[in-house]
Amino acid sequence: MAETILEKLEGRVSYHDSVEEMLIRIKKDGLSSVFSRWEDQEKIRCKFCLEGLSCQLCTQGPCRISEKAQAFKGVCGIGPDAMAMRNLLMRNIMGAATYAHHAYEAFRTLKATGEGKTTFKITDEDKLKWMCEQTGIDTKQSINQMAIQLAELLDREMKINPDQESVMVKAFAPKKRIPLWKDLHINPSGVQHEVELSIASCLTNVDGDYVSLAKKALRLGLSTIYTAQIGLEMTQDILFGTPMPHEVDVDLGIMDPDYVNIAFNGHQPWIGVATLQKAKMKEYQDLARQAGAKGIHIVGSIETGQEMLQRFEVDDVFVGLMGNWLAIEPFLATGTVDALVMEENCSPPAIDQYAEKYQVALVSVSTIIGVPGADHEMPYYPGKAEEMAEQCINIAIENFKKRHDNIKPMVPKHKRKAIAGFSTEAVLKAIGNDLNNLVDVIASGQIKGVVALANCSTLRNGPQDWNTVNLTKQLIKKDILVVAGGCGNHGLEVAGMCSLDAANEAGEGLKGVCKALGIPPVLSFGTCTDTGRISMLVTALADHLDVDISDLPIAVTAPEWMEQKATIDGIFAVAYGAYTHLSPTPFITGAPDLVKLVTEDVESLTGGKIALGDDPVQVANDIEAHILKKRQKMGLS
Amino acid sequence: MAETILEKLEGRVSYHDSVEEMLIRIKKDGLSSVFSRWEDQEKIRCKFCLEGLSCQLCTQGPCRISEKAQAFKGVCGIGPDAMAMRNLLMRNIMGAATYAHHAYEAFRTLKATGEGKTTFKITDEDKLKWMCEQTGIDTKQSINQMAIQLAELLDREMKINPDQESVMVKAFAPKKRIPLWKDLHINPSGVQHEVELSIASCLTNVDGDYVSLAKKALRLGLSTIYTAQIGLEMTQDILFGTPMPHEVDVDLGIMDPDYVNIAFNGHQPWIGVATLQKAKMKEYQDLARQAGAKGIHIVGSIETGQEMLQRFEVDDVFVGLMGNWLAIEPFLATGTVDALVMEENCSPPAIDQYAEKYQVALVSVSTIIGVPGADHEMPYYPGKAEEMAEQCINIAIENFKKRHDNIKPMVPKHKRKAIAGFSTEAVLKAIGNDLNNLVDVIASGQIKGVVALANCSTLRNGPQDWNTVNLTKQLIKKDILVVAGGCGNHGLEVAGMCSLDAANEAGEGLKGVCKALGIPPVLSFGTCTDTGRISMLVTALADHLDVDISDLPIAVTAPEWMEQKATIDGIFAVAYGAYTHLSPTPFITGAPDLVKLVTEDVESLTGGKIALGDDPVQVANDIEAHILKKRQKMGLS
Repeated sequence: MAETILEKLEGRVSYHDSVEEMLIRIKKDGLSSVFSRWEDQEKIRCKFCLEGLSCQLCTQGPCRISEKAQAFKGVCGIGPDAMAMRNLLMRNIMGAATYAHHAYEAFRTLKATGEGKTTFKITDEDKLKWMCEQTGIDTKQSINQMAIQLAELLDREMKINPDQESVMVKAFAPKKRIPLWKDLHINPSGVQHEVELSIASCLTNVDGDYVSLAKKALRLGLSTIYTAQIGLEMTQDILFGTPMPHEVDVDLGIMDPDYVNIAFNGHQPWIGVATLQKAKMKEYQDLARQAGAKGIHIVGSIETGQEMLQRFEVDDVFVGLMGNWLAIEPFLATGTVDALVMEENCSPPAIDQYAEKYQVALVSVSTIIGVPGADHEMPYYPGKAEEMAEQCINIAIENFKKRHDNIKPMVPKHKRKAIAGFSTEAVLKAIGNDLNNLVDVIASGQIKGVVALANCSTLRNGPQDWNTVNLTKQLIKKDILVVAGGCGNHGLEVAGMCSLDAANEAGEGLKGVCKALGIPPVLSFGTCTDTGRISMLVTALADHLDVDISDLPIAVTAPEWMEQKATIDGIFAVAYGAYTHLSPTPFITGAPDLVKLVTEDVESLTGGKIALGDDPVQVANDIEAHILKKRQKMGLS
Repeated sequence: MAETILEKLEGRVSYHDSVEEMLIRIKKDGLSSVFSRWEDQEKIRCKFCLEGLSCQLCTQGPCRISEKAQAFKGVCGIGPDAMAMRNLLMRNIMGAATYAHHAYEAFRTLKATGEGKTTFKITDEDKLKWMCEQTGIDTKQSINQMAIQLAELLDREMKINPDQESVMVKAFAPKKRIPLWKDLHINPSGVQHEVELSIASCLTNVDGDYVSLAKKALRLGLSTIYTAQIGLEMTQDILFGTPMPHEVDVDLGIMDPDYVNIAFNGHQPWIGVATLQKAKMKEYQDLARQAGAKGIHIVGSIETGQEMLQRFEVDDVFVGLMGNWLAIEPFLATGTVDALVMEENCSPPAIDQYAEKYQVALVSVSTIIGVPGADHEMPYYPGKAEEMAEQCINIAIENFKKRHDNIKPMVPKHKRKAIAGFSTEAVLKAIGNDLNNLVDVIASGQIKGVVALANCSTLRNGPQDWNTVNLTKQLIKKDILVVAGGCGNHGLEVAGMCSLDAANEAGEGLKGVCKALGIPPVLSFGTCTDTGRISMLVTALADHLDVDISDLPIAVTAPEWMEQKATIDGIFAVAYGAYTHLSPTPFITGAPDLVKLVTEDVESLTGGKIALGDDPVQVANDIEAHILKKRQKMGLS
């Protein structure tokens, strides 16, 4: 398998030259990396685990479903379909709860900001007002009061139980979906309630029915998006500004070893933004200069970097985005990073060897982080953001003194422009605030349809970002607009697909639209957390046309999903009514009835379904066929 | 391994004759059972899973830690100790969230009862007032108002975050523990917050540090007991009465095939109690008689049965407890059960074959249940409890007509007396409401110490209940009083260890105390959910003596733990400061540093630790040695 991957792209393990170059240094320096450990693990993969037929929950296990176990059941009596679905639901739960934890941090930050207790301010007052209008909060009060009330409402929403009604679901779900969800008993409560209910269902000897478990997953997906994700994204817009498109720099070539380089890694932008605010002050730049550096650079790493990239100009302090999670080890190996400040995934556990070898200070600014070798640990309190930012700067400056003298830097030359910062508001602005203009180009066939690409990056189906980039190229060639979020989006940015030039790789129709509007064929919508944001655009389109989501010529793809948040995004998409392509294939292939349910039968229920496939050409053809079918149904040629 | 088990108790797979007899019928009838599937799975166990060195979280996996994977790490970079601890923490989370879900149902039931919307009433007004006093609720208001306010407070407690202080922790934690927990950063928030934080930590690439993960487990354990479990137990006392000792009947011999038999299975007594109320009315008994039955019998199955057994007299309607979870399949095979009504674990997934073969209606009364073949599904709403109870009776009567004519019953003759219904209040009452009387018998050495036994039943370390019963026999022989909860407790009840006669198997000191007070040497404290209740007695003792928990001559044992709730009870005990014996050994043996942490190093932090061992004689000796050490330290001989 490892060899197959190498052959796929002429001996490469990454789509990106910068990563390939750094891996040579890493190997020479005798360090292991995700790439080398992947090859090691390929020798000892467990077939049962791959098929979803392994369970380690209780002491009656571990169990495997096999012909050798004559009952084809675990000791408790669970069958293959329920075992695989329960395994998947547990991963969905992990994703949902992690989004909920991010949302919790967002809402308490908004509240503390409204109370005047943080270093942040209400940046987008219009959005705050709009959110208050949507959720029934009185807008005839002060901005700060509104912020407090909205934060309290959003936090309460995550705790809604089945005896109560969710305001957020009512405000943000597509109008035609709610009755359908109610019929299916998947209209959601708050995410904390659904997480708890789903976990209690996954306990040994509770829910052994794969259909029941799958329905819980669908409800959990809806709950995650409507009671956590959308609220948290809107909160981040309110605090830091709603994304608007602008040109940015990406790839490892953004690094300059002569600066104090502080990188923010994870998904939660609090301390990144607070530090950027400080680094823009002369006194802090001076501190760095006194330590022998040219100044301080703030570097965006993976999703936290993208959160910043969406909202802030790249300038002489904020230098851009380094890449996605598979680029973290290569990034640290450049010997240019003074502090890697982490607050969520992906903060890989074996970077202590990099910290030691290349003199990087590992800093955790969230209690969920536990990276070995992280000597600096600060629990996040919104009121302490400023103080924490100052500490990050001090730690990085201290590190610079040791790092700059002792580590030979190696910075790949690759640096590229991308357009980041799309949002529903930005798209509306680009089309003159009239959705009819979008409808027109779709109706005319200039744009055949829209695909939302949201996911991670993985080595399972080829080199880093190979599948993501190649599928995207196929789609835009077919005049399908791609709206991207997550580590996959960073891969596309680094690969040049989010640049204006990329329009030249699109089909004639899409190319024309791109040139006319001055947009790339791939709209960078931010992070995986922006799945909700992407859905808001689609919901707006559906409600505008008064059709259901499942009627639209759209699809979702996660061509390189890796972790658990991606699984809940995918499940959401199916409940939302979307054709949802997933690669790699989830660990459910040993469960034939479950595979049939999620790839076929569910379509008659939600209108959505999971599509599988690891070949970008075939996948693009399948997506196109789906989009054409929907166009035909709408009476479009 | 299967053979080893058989040898251990002369070819038996269960300690109980009734179960052994039924397994002959089950085998003859060609059905699989937990016992036969155990033997099948023994052929294909995964060594990596058993050692905690298998991870299936993300698409970079599945990974195993092995010499063949040279890095001794997963693809992400996680090492063996963190991998095993993360696996364990995920199981802890499942247990915690399931308790929290039970607590949620309890609190909404209490609230609805206060509002006059249920068929229940406030049975123990004194306890309600006492709980209000403990939690700072005004007691100068109506009983119903107090119930509503307490329910709201308890529900809020589960949602406490680190910006807030928990009332329940302050009210119920041992006085000397709180400063220690704060120092260790394990003083807990609400269980919903801790669950969310722990899950977010377990996501791929977040917490890869086994010490950090272990601390999260300790905090989660404390959170579970103080913000969910104790509140829910007290709520059940308020609603249905505080347990007081009384004689009951147990084992499969309680079944009479000529009655409409409705069994309540799981942990949550709402519908069981509501149905018992109705079944005591002549009109419903008459309905059953019109259908050709002698009447209606309500049967307690596993923990729900125990919840009822603790509080209600066994009479001509409520006939007692059938046994623990491993007895469920044998119980159904008696051909006497008309309805198995389920609301939580353990509701094993393969009982559909029993339902078909022996004509049992499977009824679910909770949305978490998903047992294949459960044709009757009713989501629980407190206000609908009466209606649901009525439906259960109707379903069972309909079933009786088919079952009684078509199924040949087979009821083992075994039926035994036990004393059920101990509680802190009951113990205090038995010692004249003066803890000094308990202190005196401990100081004099008549009782050397107290062991809390709380757990399940498993086949991993021998036949059903073999380890539990044999360890208990060893302990009481050494004058160690056993306080029991959970499926293990049901095993002890069925084995006769909770009877007054069992005092004859105790050492001279303990025997004397038992005879003097009229109590058995094993005090049945109820279910696994009563772990909190047991801790309340221990806390009262510690606070009374003004010593810390870790100074007391006590220990905890889970000699046959099986599922995830047991893991969080065990982790709680370690944080609480108790010597905590676990058998079977958790799946962590491939993680040497983690094993050292939880079995040795943690003692210097919390005063508690995990002790391992599957041999009841050796385990009892180890526990005795620990107790003697603590006695010596207290200056007791």
